[in-house]
Amino acid sequence: MNEFDDYLAECRALVLEEIRDIIPKDPRYGPVLYELMLDYPLREGKGFRPALCIATCRALGGHLEATLRTAAVLELYHNAFLIHDDFEDGSLMRRGDNTLHRKYGAPIAINVGDAMLALSLSPLLDNMELLGLGKALRILRVVADMARESAEGQALELFWIREGRWDLSDEDYFHLVHKKTCWYTFLAPILIGGIIKGVADDKMKTLEAFAVELGVAFQIVDDVLNLEVGDGAYGKEHLGDLWEGKHTLILMHAMRTANPSDTTRAQEILQKSRADKTDEEVRELHAIVERTQSVDYARNVAYSRASNAREILSNTTDWLQPSVHRAFLEQIVDRVVQRNR
Amino acid sequence: MNEFDDYLAECRALVLEEIRDIIPKDPRYGPVLYELMLDYPLREGKGFRPALCIATCRALGGHLEATLRTAAVLELYHNAFLIHDDFEDGSLMRRGDNTLHRKYGAPIAINVGDAMLALSLSPLLDNMELLGLGKALRILRVVADMARESAEGQALELFWIREGRWDLSDEDYFHLVHKKTCWYTFLAPILIGGIIKGVADDKMKTLEAFAVELGVAFQIVDDVLNLEVGDGAYGKEHLGDLWEGKHTLILMHAMRTANPSDTTRAQEILQKSRADKTDEEVRELHAIVERTQSVDYARNVAYSRASNAREILSNTTDWLQPSVHRAFLEQIVDRVVQRNR
Repeated sequence: MNEFDDYLAECRALVLEEIRDIIPKDPRYGPVLYELMLDYPLREGKGFRPALCIATCRALGGHLEATLRTAAVLELYHNAFLIHDDFEDGSLMRRGDNTLHRKYGAPIAINVGDAMLALSLSPLLDNMELLGLGKALRILRVVADMARESAEGQALELFWIREGRWDLSDEDYFHLVHKKTCWYTFLAPILIGGIIKGVADDKMKTLEAFAVELGVAFQIVDDVLNLEVGDGAYGKEHLGDLWEGKHTLILMHAMRTANPSDTTRAQEILQKSRADKTDEEVRELHAIVERTQSVDYARNVAYSRASNAREILSNTTDWLQPSVHRAFLEQIVDRVVQRNR
Repeated sequence: MNEFDDYLAECRALVLEEIRDIIPKDPRYGPVLYELMLDYPLREGKGFRPALCIATCRALGGHLEATLRTAAVLELYHNAFLIHDDFEDGSLMRRGDNTLHRKYGAPIAINVGDAMLALSLSPLLDNMELLGLGKALRILRVVADMARESAEGQALELFWIREGRWDLSDEDYFHLVHKKTCWYTFLAPILIGGIIKGVADDKMKTLEAFAVELGVAFQIVDDVLNLEVGDGAYGKEHLGDLWEGKHTLILMHAMRTANPSDTTRAQEILQKSRADKTDEEVRELHAIVERTQSVDYARNVAYSRASNAREILSNTTDWLQPSVHRAFLEQIVDRVVQRNR
């Protein structure tokens, strides 16, 4: 363990305690509802979101007590999204175990996600007393935006998959990732950290820019890891993105730059649903991606976006105070591109 | 058309306009998201929920402008729940057409429901300006309760189905229906109508009791219609509840009162998933229910609960003013038990 991992672990423990506190204890609904809400949160995730919210607020000089409950709500929201997205994407593995819909069936899993969303509202209303009306309202608006943006991102991706759309540019990818990843993994936690401390608009703009660069880098690295790392440490299914025909920067680059016969063949394979693809076909797809060196291309884009994030942060020394919290924000930029899970 | 249907039709038209206004127009997300949000609302539903909210508020002396937006949000919520529930229950038909997950696939349908929930939050925050902080907050708390109670009800039913539980009493049924039907069909609309006008606690208690009696009667009649009315006028699948093995008052009564060989046979059939049941088996189940005269039993319970609702309403003449709005509340009690869809 190092300083960064210690910080994450500490936030994770505090947030888990809050989540346990938010979830009702009624035993009549335990076995198909409330106990299942802890399934994903108890799996060893990265825990970036609540830590980002806490670190941003505290680096600005804010207090832990002001942000902890809201940080926990973000984690609850995140896990609810994961449950629904895993079902929608047909994903098999999440954090090293079967996805929730595979463990309990899709009907129960979808309902658990809905109930987690339902439980998120009340603690955000409690912020009226804790933080005052203005801040509580701004947080609620950010959460509403986050939920809408994430659903739009998910809709766009499902649309591209359904229509077999591969005539797409990097800009299209960045647009998608801004919605489906940046908003709920980076933008909402960081912006809410800023709102809780009450920073001025120009600083909020800077935090926003930082969050977007970090979010894009994060998602690209996620895409890279899916092709490069096996099931064990990574926690998701190796090559799962190819099985699901996901619109990663890598695959989009490969489809633009592969030779015509490879492109045609890749399109044939990608038209098939997950169930209709064979191991051999997914390996073929992987080989095409290797020939276009799209992983290297994507990794370079990720490095460049992380470097932008680092640069943005380096210009904030007069208002993001030197502290373990600021250090966490600096270190997460490196971690996002250097992680192996 | 009569006065009651005119009232419903007028509320429906106003609420549809509001819903169109709430849904973003962005064409990039139209085909897999925003256009699909109107699919269920545009089907000819009963439209009880927003009309109940509006009628309650106006019968108390409140104004249409104060309640319309919130009534539309309730309808949006309701349709989002329907999309998720239809998938979770494996339902085939809704308001005379295929359920949304059958039309567009489950991934897209679940995401559309999530996005509808996401869009509901912002208009409820706008109530802070329209109605003031206190009322806006109370409405948000009711909506949070409604979402949680509904998810608990759905969880309980999925649990009973999964465990093959039929050792259940009428009280268990009433408990289930209080959560899964009363809350979002009657309690939330009526309570919110009361909150918007700002009535005192004792009157809120009366409205609550009225909503519960009406809700239980409504759900029982829904169960009856599922067995008695064919696909056409009714809009759902004839005998769909038997195919899905739903815990209706009817089937629960039949399982308690059938002769031992019928009970055993019914249990065998109900253990099977929808896909494994045959037409013949569902007809057998129907015959068992006919032998126990459970439909008559259930209809009598519904009449009795509707009669309770009528009685509660008759004691409110000093504060629910004589008007078309009060008349609507009186007439809906009759309609709930006399409808054929």
